[in-house]
Amino acid sequence: MHRWKYFCNTMVSTAIKTEIITIGDELLLGQTIDTNSAWIGKKLGEHGFTINYKSTISDKESDILSAISLAQTRSEIVLITGGLGPTKDDITKHTLCKYFNCGYRTDELVIRHLEAIFAQRGKQLLETNLIQAELPAVCETLFNRAGTAPGMWFENEQGIVVSMPGVPNEVYTITEESLLPRLTQKYSLPKVLHKSLVTVMIAESLLSKRLEPYESNLPKGISLAYLPTFNTVKLRLTRTDASITESLFDTSFNNLLQELGSDVFCLNDQDPAQAISKYLLSKGITFSTAESCTGGYIANKLMQEPGISAIFPGSLVAYANEVKVRELGVKEEDLIANGAVSDSVASAMARGICEKFNVKLGISTTGIAGPSGGTDEKPVGLVFIGVCYNGEIIVKKHRMIGNREQFTHRTANAAFALIKQILQVEVLP
Amino acid sequence: MHRWKYFCNTMVSTAIKTEIITIGDELLLGQTIDTNSAWIGKKLGEHGFTINYKSTISDKESDILSAISLAQTRSEIVLITGGLGPTKDDITKHTLCKYFNCGYRTDELVIRHLEAIFAQRGKQLLETNLIQAELPAVCETLFNRAGTAPGMWFENEQGIVVSMPGVPNEVYTITEESLLPRLTQKYSLPKVLHKSLVTVMIAESLLSKRLEPYESNLPKGISLAYLPTFNTVKLRLTRTDASITESLFDTSFNNLLQELGSDVFCLNDQDPAQAISKYLLSKGITFSTAESCTGGYIANKLMQEPGISAIFPGSLVAYANEVKVRELGVKEEDLIANGAVSDSVASAMARGICEKFNVKLGISTTGIAGPSGGTDEKPVGLVFIGVCYNGEIIVKKHRMIGNREQFTHRTANAAFALIKQILQVEVLP
Repeated sequence: MHRWKYFCNTMVSTAIKTEIITIGDELLLGQTIDTNSAWIGKKLGEHGFTINYKSTISDKESDILSAISLAQTRSEIVLITGGLGPTKDDITKHTLCKYFNCGYRTDELVIRHLEAIFAQRGKQLLETNLIQAELPAVCETLFNRAGTAPGMWFENEQGIVVSMPGVPNEVYTITEESLLPRLTQKYSLPKVLHKSLVTVMIAESLLSKRLEPYESNLPKGISLAYLPTFNTVKLRLTRTDASITESLFDTSFNNLLQELGSDVFCLNDQDPAQAISKYLLSKGITFSTAESCTGGYIANKLMQEPGISAIFPGSLVAYANEVKVRELGVKEEDLIANGAVSDSVASAMARGICEKFNVKLGISTTGIAGPSGGTDEKPVGLVFIGVCYNGEIIVKKHRMIGNREQFTHRTANAAFALIKQILQVEVLP
Repeated sequence: MHRWKYFCNTMVSTAIKTEIITIGDELLLGQTIDTNSAWIGKKLGEHGFTINYKSTISDKESDILSAISLAQTRSEIVLITGGLGPTKDDITKHTLCKYFNCGYRTDELVIRHLEAIFAQRGKQLLETNLIQAELPAVCETLFNRAGTAPGMWFENEQGIVVSMPGVPNEVYTITEESLLPRLTQKYSLPKVLHKSLVTVMIAESLLSKRLEPYESNLPKGISLAYLPTFNTVKLRLTRTDASITESLFDTSFNNLLQELGSDVFCLNDQDPAQAISKYLLSKGITFSTAESCTGGYIANKLMQEPGISAIFPGSLVAYANEVKVRELGVKEEDLIANGAVSDSVASAMARGICEKFNVKLGISTTGIAGPSGGTDEKPVGLVFIGVCYNGEIIVKKHRMIGNREQFTHRTANAAFALIKQILQVEVLP
């Protein structure tokens, strides 16, 4: 028996079916990757709305009309993104007028917003831009602080239809500032429970073998999902049945943590780089990188955290051997005897960067990203990763599979695992 | 009248409706961004197959069954990704057995492939892994060189259903090596025509204003789309009607090029970084970067090109002022008089990196990425970008909008525009 509790202001309902329609030929053709719908799914999920269905359709009027119409038969909330630009290929607004059988109204607030934006940018407000203030007569305006095309909120007897522009930053702004406040006012939903952890450098099949007994004992109503990418696996526990109490759910997650021990890399939906950066910041551990094959990717991932300048003076990409020698103090005879892709060079680079930038933690990479440059002895994918912490040095050798991009991501994750090891942290918070 | 020409071996058809279904709660919840379907759309598009519809559904058997069933009523080819892992939450294979009303067969070739993979990795082949060789009896195997779960090809009176794993690298491998050869053997389709160009640092609304006469004169059957991201706009011309000849299509694209002149940054679906890297490689122009606020992002984008080591010795992230002084020769009095975020410091950094690494082209950035650190005089988003080429230096000041990530992407694109300017290239090939 379900025991969800509902506290609804306006509506009482057992589940608010929500669906996303993304509009754009560029999405079907694959010229643009849709990141909006994942973001919306995550954000709405935090507030108890579950996306049941996503679909992508072309910029054709007939396709848009039939998609909205179909969606309204199966979902109470329909969120549409895309096709609201000032250019001729954007027809969503006109199509919505047709669907809701209405004309246009001019929104004075939008005009004032457009004037302010263009004044700030020191640019001329064109006739084309003013079209953004012409909205379907029956919609309410969802203010868009981040851009020129406002969101639109429609209601009919079947439910709610919301249309937003396709530019990611504008979707985020409208959703957080205008859409979610309105949705959560209308519906008050029970909390959805998810908890996740990330493992690094452990194969999905090994994990699943090891977690077989755990999974068999999981209460019905809690499910475990494996989400692998580039040498990491995210394990996500979800409460699928509201009869499971929060405390039983927490216990199940704690059992999972116990089962995996220090093989858990980090928690709370963080990615490994974020978890490392935050930890280093909290402890005031200064760091730098000396990267060859990863070309600065590791430093760039680690310096995304606001405030990182307190512990990150800078870093070096040392691609050419002469840079390794001159900037990092790698020995020429070492390069000749062992080659640039070697244990001893990785070690010297990690030590060298600590000295150069006077930091406590140094990370180095030297390897063969491919596609060419491999030999029998040193094949494409071979990489040595070094970390130096307070004078101690660990170097690890890996053979990464995949193309150049995969090589870089996998090497970065392997480096993060090595950092956690040398810092002797059990689980990153 | 349509003048498409068809040369079909097996089937004669006017349009092969193709549809993608991606399976996975993680996609609906937004924990994973679906990059597969964009890639498939692009790849199949090159061979004349057009994706009409994409949908994303959960890992529930009933949802999978009804999605396949619906898709088969409206599309001849249905491509499914996801849900083929060795873990319990992956149910696609069992569901396909149900849909096609069949049992399992063991694929000996897949077993041998699994043995080879695990031997190469020096890992133990587990019972769990062998499950991957159990396939629905009625499907044909699509070999997966890159992973353990093979693709599956089903045919019934309604058309073709293909199931592939969700791991991007495996989708690419199966599609290129097994799926496309089979599809192109079965259908021979007319060429789809797309051509695109990219502009950098020109607003979409200004472009569309400028191209109004061009668009009005475009022949019916050719459409122009605007795809903006981070200070770039991709303009894509598509032949939507086969009565348009290739030569008329080419003429229309050439007119677009002429209209925009040197405001065209690059062609051929390249992104600006790729176009710059390839150009520098082709001319043997050595380069390096000294980045503050962009943290090595620009160097990392430019060094993705295979073979880049010939012209890229390495680069520096100079976050702290003392690194700017010590490593790049920025003057202390300059930092005191003008601050780190200034025209003169950007200029000194660009010159300094050229000297340090003995390269012809140096790129520097210094700015305030935010979210904090801004003042009235130097607000968040302010950035100075310097480029130095053969001794000549240009510095440009920008105010970027958006968060830290957007700041970085926009600054990188502004830097690419400045590189094109100093190199005096009309349009990057």
